[in-house]
Amino acid sequence: MPLIQVTMLKGRTIEQKRKLAARITDAMVEDAKAAKEAVVITFIEITREDYASAGVLLADKK
Amino acid sequence: MPLIQVTMLKGRTIEQKRKLAARITDAMVEDAKAAKEAVVITFIEITREDYASAGVLLADKK
Amino acid sequence: MPLIQVTMLKGRTIEQKRKLAARITDAMVEDAKAAKEAVVITFIEITREDYASAGVLLADKK
Amino acid sequence: MPLIQVTMLKGRTIEQKRKLAARITDAMVEDAKAAKEAVVITFIEITREDYASAGVLLADKK
Amino acid sequence: MPLIQVTMLKGRTIEQKRKLAARITDAMVEDAKAAKEAVVITFIEITREDYASAGVLLADKK
Amino acid sequence: MPLIQVTMLKGRTIEQKRKLAARITDAMVEDAKAAKEAVVITFIEITREDYASAGVLLADKK
Repeated sequence: MPLIQVTMLKGRTIEQKRKLAARITDAMVEDAKAAKEAVVITFIEITREDYASAGVLLADKK
Repeated sequence: MPLIQVTMLKGRTIEQKRKLAARITDAMVEDAKAAKEAVVITFIEITREDYASAGVLLADKK
Repeated sequence: MPLIQVTMLKGRTIEQKRKLAARITDAMVEDAKAAKEAVVITFIEITREDYASAGVLLADKK
Repeated sequence: MPLIQVTMLKGRTIEQKRKLAARITDAMVEDAKAAKEAVVITFIEITREDYASAGVLLADKK
Repeated sequence: MPLIQVTMLKGRTIEQKRKLAARITDAMVEDAKAAKEAVVITFIEITREDYASAGVLLADKK
Repeated sequence: MPLIQVTMLKGRTIEQKRKLAARITDAMVEDAKAAKEAVVITFIEITREDYASAGVLLADKK
């Protein structure tokens, strides 16, 4: 705790995930006073066909 | 906002997702007075091995 | 299955939720060929302080 | 209802998922007095690159 | 890891949650070979107005 | 997109959430190349009775 679930488009590199994990954890520790060992982050990757905003799939946006 | 996460079995076509995204968004706008641009939908697809009801995997149901 | 989780601002009436549940379920049945009895919907209500877009809390937007 | 979402590392066999589904459902029925038919479980499998604790990806831990 | 999110109706006692946490964790350790210290469980409690199946709110079922 | 769901103990101030929202969004923009307007964050707050690790409720830990 805290648990952070990040849902994002497939395609980020492991290096990008590494940086995200470090920075989001730092934010939770410094701003929310969470214990560092207790911060858990998961990345859920989805495709452009599995995300829609304003009623339109991302795959259908130009 | 609102955010709608749909967890369903793999296998729907992009055309089915397109229709779902449009209809769910319309419902949120018309019935819940959400701003259309703010409605976000994600589809999480899982297999019959990753879903259980009444204690039994879908993969094990006849 | 399918499972639909709707995260939205607190304040909708039960009548609005009733309509959303009916319409989203109809969409899943008609467009995704889900079995009606298997469609499960949950509403998670949050406050304007617990939602941010573009880095700004909704509570802080004018 | 209840809905149980299990996020875990990829790699469990169908037999392991079968046992987990049965045992978690039994716990919900016996300890939380849930109706058996209403217990729904989903497994979301992720890779070691998509999970971090204490700011470090599991893929980076020795 | 694993992370287990349990969405259920409000009203369970702390003693029920205590037993659920223990049993679900045991299942993850014994059947999925998870490390005990790494099993995290969260309970999200919702009302009968915030849950629907087959298109009908639980609050509307007799 | 991306969508970030933060589940944490109740008790953070609005100022803490404000900072978290800003920093997590910056991380998504700078490290994951997300469009700033598309980053959505939700905070789900739970009690010590609704969180367990290693099979024990946080409320039961000394």
